[in-house]
Amino acid sequence: MSEFNKLSLDAVQEEGFKPLRKTFSEGGNRNNHTSTAPGSFKFKDPLFDYYKYIDYREEIYVNRLREAVAIKSVSAWPDHRQEIFKMLEWTAAWTEKLGGKVQLYENPCKTQQLDDGTTTPLPPIMLGSFGNDPKKKTVCVYGHLDVQPALLTDGWNTEPFELTEIDGKLFGRGSTDDKGPALSWLWMVEAFNELKMDLPVNIKMIYEGMEEYGSEGMFETVNELAKPGKFLSNVDFFCISDNYWLGKNKPCLTYGLRGMSYFEVGVECSTKDLHSGVYGGSVHEAMTDLVKLMSTLVETDGTIKVEGVMKDVAPVTEKEQEIYETIDFDLKNYAEEVGVTTIGEARLRHDNKKDLLMARWRFPTLSLHGIEGAFSDPGAKTVIPRRVLGKFSLRLVPDQDPKQIAECVTKHLNAEFDKLGSPNKMWVKAHHGAKAWLSSTDHPNYTAAAAAVEKVYGLAPDMTREGGSIPIATWLEDATQMNVLLLPVGACDDMAHSQNEKFDRKNMVNAIKVLGCYLFEIAKIKGPKPSECRCEPISMEDMMIPGAFARGFRCKCEI
Amino acid sequence: MSEFNKLSLDAVQEEGFKPLRKTFSEGGNRNNHTSTAPGSFKFKDPLFDYYKYIDYREEIYVNRLREAVAIKSVSAWPDHRQEIFKMLEWTAAWTEKLGGKVQLYENPCKTQQLDDGTTTPLPPIMLGSFGNDPKKKTVCVYGHLDVQPALLTDGWNTEPFELTEIDGKLFGRGSTDDKGPALSWLWMVEAFNELKMDLPVNIKMIYEGMEEYGSEGMFETVNELAKPGKFLSNVDFFCISDNYWLGKNKPCLTYGLRGMSYFEVGVECSTKDLHSGVYGGSVHEAMTDLVKLMSTLVETDGTIKVEGVMKDVAPVTEKEQEIYETIDFDLKNYAEEVGVTTIGEARLRHDNKKDLLMARWRFPTLSLHGIEGAFSDPGAKTVIPRRVLGKFSLRLVPDQDPKQIAECVTKHLNAEFDKLGSPNKMWVKAHHGAKAWLSSTDHPNYTAAAAAVEKVYGLAPDMTREGGSIPIATWLEDATQMNVLLLPVGACDDMAHSQNEKFDRKNMVNAIKVLGCYLFEIAKIKGPKPSECRCEPISMEDMMIPGAFARGFRCKCEI
Repeated sequence: MSEFNKLSLDAVQEEGFKPLRKTFSEGGNRNNHTSTAPGSFKFKDPLFDYYKYIDYREEIYVNRLREAVAIKSVSAWPDHRQEIFKMLEWTAAWTEKLGGKVQLYENPCKTQQLDDGTTTPLPPIMLGSFGNDPKKKTVCVYGHLDVQPALLTDGWNTEPFELTEIDGKLFGRGSTDDKGPALSWLWMVEAFNELKMDLPVNIKMIYEGMEEYGSEGMFETVNELAKPGKFLSNVDFFCISDNYWLGKNKPCLTYGLRGMSYFEVGVECSTKDLHSGVYGGSVHEAMTDLVKLMSTLVETDGTIKVEGVMKDVAPVTEKEQEIYETIDFDLKNYAEEVGVTTIGEARLRHDNKKDLLMARWRFPTLSLHGIEGAFSDPGAKTVIPRRVLGKFSLRLVPDQDPKQIAECVTKHLNAEFDKLGSPNKMWVKAHHGAKAWLSSTDHPNYTAAAAAVEKVYGLAPDMTREGGSIPIATWLEDATQMNVLLLPVGACDDMAHSQNEKFDRKNMVNAIKVLGCYLFEIAKIKGPKPSECRCEPISMEDMMIPGAFARGFRCKCEI
Repeated sequence: MSEFNKLSLDAVQEEGFKPLRKTFSEGGNRNNHTSTAPGSFKFKDPLFDYYKYIDYREEIYVNRLREAVAIKSVSAWPDHRQEIFKMLEWTAAWTEKLGGKVQLYENPCKTQQLDDGTTTPLPPIMLGSFGNDPKKKTVCVYGHLDVQPALLTDGWNTEPFELTEIDGKLFGRGSTDDKGPALSWLWMVEAFNELKMDLPVNIKMIYEGMEEYGSEGMFETVNELAKPGKFLSNVDFFCISDNYWLGKNKPCLTYGLRGMSYFEVGVECSTKDLHSGVYGGSVHEAMTDLVKLMSTLVETDGTIKVEGVMKDVAPVTEKEQEIYETIDFDLKNYAEEVGVTTIGEARLRHDNKKDLLMARWRFPTLSLHGIEGAFSDPGAKTVIPRRVLGKFSLRLVPDQDPKQIAECVTKHLNAEFDKLGSPNKMWVKAHHGAKAWLSSTDHPNYTAAAAAVEKVYGLAPDMTREGGSIPIATWLEDATQMNVLLLPVGACDDMAHSQNEKFDRKNMVNAIKVLGCYLFEIAKIKGPKPSECRCEPISMEDMMIPGAFARGFRCKCEI
């Protein structure tokens, strides 16, 4: 892993440049920084060397991502816990190698309680930093190094933990969610180092290993580290690349996310699984009760049947209605992307762009994910499962509160279970919850990122909201009052959480370019550093404009 | 594996007898064949040597069962198909070693179609025979050498494929279902060989390897082999040991079984799994539809909601009512056995013996087994599964017809799906079905077995029906018109199909004893051999007495 030390810009020039990819140059960005006059390009765009260097190193980044994907850091698999430690250490080693400082911060929750009553250690949180110049602003990047479960038998076309390239797509679990994007920050720093370019801002990194399993301990960590004098106290801007473009080709910045409440509803009818022939007719079967309970939660058309859940959903304003009209979003392409065009009546839930985007972004949804403890293999097994756990979750929007949602869901399920008259044991467990989050597209953090994206891609990004949840965005903002930018670098068809997750090679390369450019844009922002501003924070009322897009400002001063 | 050749009765006598187990001797059988006068015991019970020999060899039988259990012949795991071939070959080798003739009969269906469209070979059916004396009657034993799936993570206390003894219980997948019982026939023959005792009847064996996955090809095989001059055409009595006692201590013979219809209902909403945050609100989720469909099938109290299913259930007669009253069955013990005593209200479905036994034996039940394709692991995954398969089955009773049941279920699900107004793709697949089966306790096959059980255990067996299905019983009887005896040798708590399947050591030993004794009792039956009788078979009307116990006679002559 020492190959990167040998290379400098001189070496690159001697060996010749690897040409930019055709698909990339079609993006229209080349005109921004190419020049016919040798030696003069530095004046056209100070980042031109940087872009060239990254293009040249493309293959190296792929190989490093391959190494990272091979580490099976699945946070939902407690028996793979050591792989998360390994992935954190791998990343920490790289950070130090590139001149950063690293602390593996002990998870305040220390251990995770497993369903069988045992405990297993929680991985630490990696705190990294590059530079500590008080004159510079500080950008903190959040990322996660754990991944969703993946098995070849789930329907992957390639081994999920072997990065496999097909037509410029790098298939592998974690390639896009979130190893690829999280590691881009390191390769950006490496490029600055190698090109002897000064980092225009201080960089901090907060990388965790339990994001896909509820980020246990992160809320406490963020709140502790936000205290005066601690790691996050002098951060001015946050940046997270853990979501995706709305389309396949056009970049976007994301200023809103839905929240989430995840639930398990359990029913137990016996201390052991029973043969349905021998024992069928003897007990009140747990599956019968569970399926009935799950069937009361949501209708086929998506209507949520839990009383009280829709109460706090912010009303749609006229201003908001207009926003959806201008967004570049094609329903036909989207139907293909989600894979409904060849199924049944090939219908999406809505037949117009506005309703569909609103259903994904600004209305809650309830999805049934599956059942643990029942027969789930191919073939036929005649079992009466003794104990079954139904898994489902709601995606929340402003102004829904996960605690209140958990109360509604629990009350609903208890009432439905009472109706069944079953003697079985039933319980509801609310897993991690996260509020929805809304930022503002006018914040300098967003305008800086928009400028960076436009320089690299030659296109202004769309400003979008998203259906997914990134609880850390709210936690960071609430704890520090600093703005959080969501800067997606992967495409809409990257299939995070699904089979055949991938990260496009060109997106990987452009991500590193955008991040470097973004730091320069941040450095240009005038006024005091947000973390040093002493203005009064804007009021909660200012922030809570229904469907508001104003939240996330630190203060009213001109930064 | 040659240790058994060295031993003869002389050797046994020289080395001293291993005493019978205490728990066994408490059964009261010792008085039947022990004697204080040396040399005189042979006149008291010609099988005394045989019993002693088996007691002496106990440990050897355990070791052989260990070998058999270690072969992971799971018919529901296509990638373990070779293990079934191995298990059949292992058994064939033993049969030949003990002087039997073996044919590995090619499965007429040849290959199995898997869900992914590929095919895999079906194992052959092992046809074995010991003796071919036309003067002797012929008893044919059916057994199966495949097993249910089993993983330690399912909740086994020991490795499922490592036979592990705890307190006289031999834990291991297949120990009781059906490797232990099926192999007992070989060890019985071995004992006769070693003791130079002539087999009182000819023995035939028909052992398959796909029973736990629908016995594909067996129906065709049985019908082909029942043709004049073929393997089954001269069989006089069938015997199957593939079910369990009603209790833990008292043996029984089983004269009735429920049938089965197994179903998959599938719903597909997309070509790929989707992230519920990113895509929730876009599609009509398959799980929502599936759970709603499954919830319409059965009520918490067990009432089946599929129209037409109860139409052909034979009415309960007065005579039948009386039978349940006398059966040795303790509801409190049973509640403990099925494991409800510590769950919820600790209620069985019925609070009296008669209703509970009728619910298990003579009324249909519908059990929901699980869902394939949804999230089923521990933890939280926010997936919208693209394609989910609900698995459920009905246990059928006289006079329900699996074909008619499949029609009712399909019609019901189609109607319920129409009500949902879903654009998704839905389908119903009826797996293997089997009619219920009833025999008669008065048939000589049953009276012979009852006498054998009484000799070994010192107790007359209960005559019971059972909730499980053994389609082969009907197939053999229908194809040959010969009587089928179900001679369970395992206890009610053996947990076939469940975690921690076991076979009690004392049941294993007594099984071999009972089988030998049973053959002597069969040999005593007077009259023509059933297979040679030329009487008219009894009419279908005779057989179809509502709730009848008369079915299963070959003819009206005095055999």
